[in-house]
Amino acid sequence: MKILAVESSAVSVSVCLTDGERLLAQDFQNCGLTHSRTLLPMIEHVLSGCGLTPHEVDGFAVAGGPGSFTGIRIGVATVKGLALAADKPCAAVSTLEAMAWGLLGLTGEVSCVMDARAGQVYHAQFALTAEGPRRLCEDRAVKLEVLAQEIGQKPQILVGDGANLCYTKLKECCPRLCLAPPQLVYPTAWGVACAARAVLTSGQGVPASALREQYLRAPQAERERAQKLAQITKN
Amino acid sequence: MKILAVESSAVSVSVCLTDGERLLAQDFQNCGLTHSRTLLPMIEHVLSGCGLTPHEVDGFAVAGGPGSFTGIRIGVATVKGLALAADKPCAAVSTLEAMAWGLLGLTGEVSCVMDARAGQVYHAQFALTAEGPRRLCEDRAVKLEVLAQEIGQKPQILVGDGANLCYTKLKECCPRLCLAPPQLVYPTAWGVACAARAVLTSGQGVPASALREQYLRAPQAERERAQKLAQITKN
Repeated sequence: MKILAVESSAVSVSVCLTDGERLLAQDFQNCGLTHSRTLLPMIEHVLSGCGLTPHEVDGFAVAGGPGSFTGIRIGVATVKGLALAADKPCAAVSTLEAMAWGLLGLTGEVSCVMDARAGQVYHAQFALTAEGPRRLCEDRAVKLEVLAQEIGQKPQILVGDGANLCYTKLKECCPRLCLAPPQLVYPTAWGVACAARAVLTSGQGVPASALREQYLRAPQAERERAQKLAQITKN
Repeated sequence: MKILAVESSAVSVSVCLTDGERLLAQDFQNCGLTHSRTLLPMIEHVLSGCGLTPHEVDGFAVAGGPGSFTGIRIGVATVKGLALAADKPCAAVSTLEAMAWGLLGLTGEVSCVMDARAGQVYHAQFALTAEGPRRLCEDRAVKLEVLAQEIGQKPQILVGDGANLCYTKLKECCPRLCLAPPQLVYPTAWGVACAARAVLTSGQGVPASALREQYLRAPQAERERAQKLAQITKN
């Protein structure tokens, strides 16, 4: 089954094409350009590099959140459009679970982290097994102090674009923390494809119209609007 | 220092751009198209994706062999052309050493292997350390039976596009063999950039005119020509 996967939930962006467990092509960029400019040319490049059209892909996968609201919306909207035009199933997976899949082949416990600002990180923990990551806690936004207490003296691999931040802030109170290998520390579309494979191959993908982002917090604009509305009602 | 690196020594092909230890962009393809068709568009895509021209790159790196004669020549000739036009230093690194760099962050001993046909593999062995791979033997072409005896009961990671072949043939006599994680088993331009970094940053890169392939065996056409010439001389 050919899966086209997109990861655009943070500062890096990547697109890949897999066939079963085989990576046919992957395009990764982490040079600060906006995803709205880079994502579609990257998808076109990956497909044309493999001599395929969107209609020859069997399913689409995207990192659905948590992460940058703008990044996630660009990824989900793009995949929605492709899946609608090609009339193929799609799946949104947890950005954090996709990061853990990126470490397939390693062993130990991993904390997948993204900078959520305001002293918080988006976080989920997994045990790495030969079959894939086994989830140990739900995706959540958590304060760094709370995470430090939870990890404590346990050995723990950090992955994700919040990994360096966490490592710097927590290494003194969590002496057995280590960073994922540098070539694996950023999320990739390959992890997204791995995380979506079981859903798509078992026919549990959704049509384009049902594809949704998976936000852990309401976007800032919506939070501010709710505050304003509450203020108006109060007055 | 910005390095553009190319890996085209076997069936997969990749191009990356690094700045110090940071991966800015990488494009990887493993879908069977010929490198002569894919490589230049991939280089253009990586550079334009980062908003750079070849003149803004500080050095060029390429997997110089061992590997497919055609693949290596396409990579070396392309990098030679780019470095000449941009008047920048370049470096050819061992394809096998680049594979070991691709496993940075892992620990243990690794055998880097490429299918060399006729029951042989191109092989080199490294110890993986936090600073990078430490070489344990020179690049060489070796028979599978000899490699099996050498590895014996030792734990050994296999990486490279000969890894699956070796694993299948040797797993019975070498019970502690294991395959590198699937996302790291194929060589990448990132490994090439890592292997070339020390040479290029210390000013030991060579001008385009001095860039050479690193063959372990003469190409088949040259071997056949030598045989014919010997035959003619004999008659």
